Amino acid sequence: MLSRSIPGYDYGHVQRSPVTLDDFKRLQSVVGFTDEDRQALQEAGALLANEAEALVDRWRKIIGSQEHLSAWFVGPDGKPDDDYKAAVKPRFVQWVVDTFKRPFDQTWLDYQDEIALRHTLAKKNKTDDAQTPPVVPLRYLLAFAVPVLADMREHLVRKNLPADDIERLHAAWTKAVILTLTLWSRPYTKEDLW
Amino acid sequence: MLSRSIPGYDYGHVQRSPVTLDDFKRLQSVVGFTDEDRQALQEAGALLANEAEALVDRWRKIIGSQEHLSAWFVGPDGKPDDDYKAAVKPRFVQWVVDTFKRPFDQTWLDYQDEIALRHTLAKKNKTDDAQTPPVVPLRYLLAFAVPVLADMREHLVRKNLPADDIERLHAAWTKAVILTLTLWSRPYTKEDLW
Repeated sequence: MLSRSIPGYDYGHVQRSPVTLDDFKRLQSVVGFTDEDRQALQEAGALLANEAEALVDRWRKIIGSQEHLSAWFVGPDGKPDDDYKAAVKPRFVQWVVDTFKRPFDQTWLDYQDEIALRHTLAKKNKTDDAQTPPVVPLRYLLAFAVPVLADMREHLVRKNLPADDIERLHAAWTKAVILTLTLWSRPYTKEDLW
Repeated sequence: MLSRSIPGYDYGHVQRSPVTLDDFKRLQSVVGFTDEDRQALQEAGALLANEAEALVDRWRKIIGSQEHLSAWFVGPDGKPDDDYKAAVKPRFVQWVVDTFKRPFDQTWLDYQDEIALRHTLAKKNKTDDAQTPPVVPLRYLLAFAVPVLADMREHLVRKNLPADDIERLHAAWTKAVILTLTLWSRPYTKEDLW
């Protein structure tokens, strides 16, 4: 499902990323992202097509269980903003699907910067007209890589694939997630230090 | 080897990190770092005690093969600063050893902030009185997580451990590396966004 019917999901309709495709190619070479990884992500996407939401549900459960993670979904009354949570969720699921299926081209690059901005003062509450805290601190975004990587492994293991395939698919997922978080760190970073 | 004979290796002798132990405990809970992970890191350290330098050699080879990674080791004459590279290397090896063996306490936390600063304008060339570029951009630091994680897996696989042990040790290494990089991102980040 590559859906544009999700409110606020503006893939292909956002401003150009300040990160160039050449910058991005350099990052891809640092993580060693190859055509085989793209193929592996496609395979993982086909295999887990119906589980993107289940993955996000698990991550949201982790978020919900730690006050320093759930705090960014809380409204001015100190209570979880359920409308905001409900609005964000399908886009989070779509991020999983897109990571599996979308080519890492200019359009994808642009959208990663949009998602990055939507975690910061620039745009966090804008899409959903919410009043939650204006930023998700970078440290939580980066540290959350661990459950996102570990959970994918568990999901792949449960598919009873040969060990080599689990390894190959998980390696591609790891590269994709670290590339993504690296791109998302851009608007948090001081001038010229990114 | 927990050596203080390495020039510029000032473990236990640096300023207090602005990150508190409580901040750090929250990050540990995000990545799910437990006593079992500490134990696993100790085991990995015992197993790979003599291979920390070989790991760093492999990473340096990757760095040397990509101009956008080796650029931060170049002197004002445009050539690699071999003295700087030689000075940095034993501290890089020691970082591997410390990650395996040191408790993640206040002293460790303080030293992660020192290492972070040594990648930025604040301190990059200071320790070795070098004249290389004044900062390693954050994006390369973060993206380099991938070879550092992938290589450790290959090293563990070569030890012919049971698959579960490889998994357990690698999971602990993943948590430690992501925690470390998260801490290292602090001085790069805009006020109040970390």
